[in-house]
Amino acid sequence: MSINANDPSKKSWINTPENSDFPIQNIPFGVFLTRDDIITIGTRIGDTAIDLGAMHQLGYFEGIPLTDDIFLQDTLNDFISDGKKTWRLVRNRISEVFDINNETLQQNEDHKNIILFTLNEIEMQLPVHIGDYTDFYSSREHATNVGSMFRDPENALMPNWLHIPVGYHGRSSTIIPSGVPIHRPLGQTLPKGAEKPIFGPSRLVDFELEMAFITTDANSMGEPIPISEAEDYIFGMVLFNDWSARDIQKWEYVPLGPFLAKSFASSISPWIVTLDALEPFRTKSPLQDPKPLPYLQQEGNHSFDIHLEVDIVTHEGNRTTVSKSNFKYMYWTMSQQLAHHTVNGCKINSGDMMGSGTISGPTPDSYGSMLELAWQGTKPVALNDGTERKFIQDNDTVVIKGYCMAKGQRIGFGEVSTKLLPVFE
Amino acid sequence: MSINANDPSKKSWINTPENSDFPIQNIPFGVFLTRDDIITIGTRIGDTAIDLGAMHQLGYFEGIPLTDDIFLQDTLNDFISDGKKTWRLVRNRISEVFDINNETLQQNEDHKNIILFTLNEIEMQLPVHIGDYTDFYSSREHATNVGSMFRDPENALMPNWLHIPVGYHGRSSTIIPSGVPIHRPLGQTLPKGAEKPIFGPSRLVDFELEMAFITTDANSMGEPIPISEAEDYIFGMVLFNDWSARDIQKWEYVPLGPFLAKSFASSISPWIVTLDALEPFRTKSPLQDPKPLPYLQQEGNHSFDIHLEVDIVTHEGNRTTVSKSNFKYMYWTMSQQLAHHTVNGCKINSGDMMGSGTISGPTPDSYGSMLELAWQGTKPVALNDGTERKFIQDNDTVVIKGYCMAKGQRIGFGEVSTKLLPVFE
Repeated sequence: MSINANDPSKKSWINTPENSDFPIQNIPFGVFLTRDDIITIGTRIGDTAIDLGAMHQLGYFEGIPLTDDIFLQDTLNDFISDGKKTWRLVRNRISEVFDINNETLQQNEDHKNIILFTLNEIEMQLPVHIGDYTDFYSSREHATNVGSMFRDPENALMPNWLHIPVGYHGRSSTIIPSGVPIHRPLGQTLPKGAEKPIFGPSRLVDFELEMAFITTDANSMGEPIPISEAEDYIFGMVLFNDWSARDIQKWEYVPLGPFLAKSFASSISPWIVTLDALEPFRTKSPLQDPKPLPYLQQEGNHSFDIHLEVDIVTHEGNRTTVSKSNFKYMYWTMSQQLAHHTVNGCKINSGDMMGSGTISGPTPDSYGSMLELAWQGTKPVALNDGTERKFIQDNDTVVIKGYCMAKGQRIGFGEVSTKLLPVFE
Repeated sequence: MSINANDPSKKSWINTPENSDFPIQNIPFGVFLTRDDIITIGTRIGDTAIDLGAMHQLGYFEGIPLTDDIFLQDTLNDFISDGKKTWRLVRNRISEVFDINNETLQQNEDHKNIILFTLNEIEMQLPVHIGDYTDFYSSREHATNVGSMFRDPENALMPNWLHIPVGYHGRSSTIIPSGVPIHRPLGQTLPKGAEKPIFGPSRLVDFELEMAFITTDANSMGEPIPISEAEDYIFGMVLFNDWSARDIQKWEYVPLGPFLAKSFASSISPWIVTLDALEPFRTKSPLQDPKPLPYLQQEGNHSFDIHLEVDIVTHEGNRTTVSKSNFKYMYWTMSQQLAHHTVNGCKINSGDMMGSGTISGPTPDSYGSMLELAWQGTKPVALNDGTERKFIQDNDTVVIKGYCMAKGQRIGFGEVSTKLLPVFE
């Protein structure tokens, strides 16, 4: 089935600001609370939010096999379960209805009043119920930086790293959408040179610049997903800030991995951009040497050229871009991650989320965490207001943005913005 | 509120075999499919399953604040959300209705036909939707054994182990109830002396003898649960087999912890025994030296004396008990685990599951895994049919049982029984 919605020449009758992340070629999916306190599934063109529940009730999805309440839900899980063919039919239909040459809804003021919202009339929610969340560790530059700092610069990568898309299970219950503030966590840390740990607020709270993908139901328990099919089970992507407390992490993580250093909060952007919308921005991933084992081998372009940046906004509102990176730097692709995750028969459900791991690029200004940008506090990062940061301070807001750009066409993710409040009292 | 249901002198009009795990003092909660293909929440006395959905519809819970459909659900999550006071009211009422001196239901043949089932008329399901699953590592003997084998016998425990109830996030999607068979997983392993990993079936599939507790909604995100309140948020416990592929684990787990070595399957017993039912079997846990940090300090008895055993049943049906252990050996208590888990503000939901970690006792016949029992394959375990095992073979069934016994009173968990099938084809 062709992806008509990607036609770059298409324009919408909904006003779309120049450089918007959300032209009619994007059509992301999200969940929002409307002015009438109703939760609905929606999409967005320009700065207009579109209520898909209302559109469906008014007959705009006629002919597409959808249950009546598929968009009147507080998560996208059931819609995602419907599978890739249905996602495409719906996205193509939305593209048709909002095409500048289509007058049906454009001329129907009553329907427009019901279906369209300005952004300040809605409140974005978590788009999916995340059953299981996995975080990978797939940036070679990040793994090398961390290995150099904490282990041995001569052997920075662990022996398994070039053979396995290393990953671990994370905590689902504390994944929040953009805009929800978080608190500095308390925890145990071992001060330098001390023999006994102390308890108190983490002093080294950090962001991690990541992206994450959301899956559909993919397999029965026991059944691996072949790498050739893996992309069919990826619904779309979001921006992801995997908040980390470095001092807690350092004391707790050997031998079973990060736990409370991560589980206090993880933030995602609220609009899921489909893999279909990202199709024009496919690109190669880095050459893999040594060649991975056969179940991880693939041909063709399986990464995406997505520009990423991280801003720190101080309590007073002063903004500094501290990192510029790109998703294409990832060594392991999403399909390799998913094939690896299921090779042991692990069951993947609709709404599962898989993080990329911190996306660091090759240059120091493209590193994806304060740990790397300020190199363990040895190179503080200068902000535009004259202050500097080794890690994130109370009342700082961290904003991650991301977009693709090719041949004058832009498809973006909006942002994930999270304020760090002081310790909970 | 008193726990009348624990009265040891009470007898039921339902026939209860001697040495049953499920006398009227137990009243566990589970979910089953009935002969009419209806899913319902139920309990069990002796070998009789009791449909709580039907009891509620017939008015037996009158006066207790419960929604009409609270037991007509396919998970216990909503009931668990109702909180400890409601659990007690319901358990006390069940105890009353089935008391040998109560004739109401006892004499009502029509109602009995609707409410009561023999065990072969029902099929037990997973009792809760597990949002997040955490596994701890809280047996000192197990951590010491593993540390001795893989690291240094002189410094077997990691420096953090005596200060932190070490834990990590696990995979929820592959937790299954007793009776569901699993497949030997495929994966990457590094053969001894090799430079490159190979791909194939795990050769070292192991059980882990554990127990797990199920929580209710406990806190808002950001808010720690004080240790003094932690037990109020524990609904009950199950037996837990945390299947592990040791060769996959060894190659993948540094630095981010176990991943595919565990996520292929984890099995639990289907009846959740409430903390209230376990009250008479409280006991001390091992002395903690050094004294933990204040947020982990507690007085009194916070462990439970639960006898545990593991059987291996061969394809031909020959059964051997390979381990006898006890939950009371755990160094860290459940309330310490929960207080630690939330000290960073991690949100706990109804139906979350937390595993104890492998429960090894002080003697070699009380170790909780084949890794330890056969000491890395150096001391094969003899089975009653004359064969021996270093790890689990295809078509072996592993059965974990558990029960408490004091003053002639027995409260048990039944069993978790899982057959290991060959690699999925």
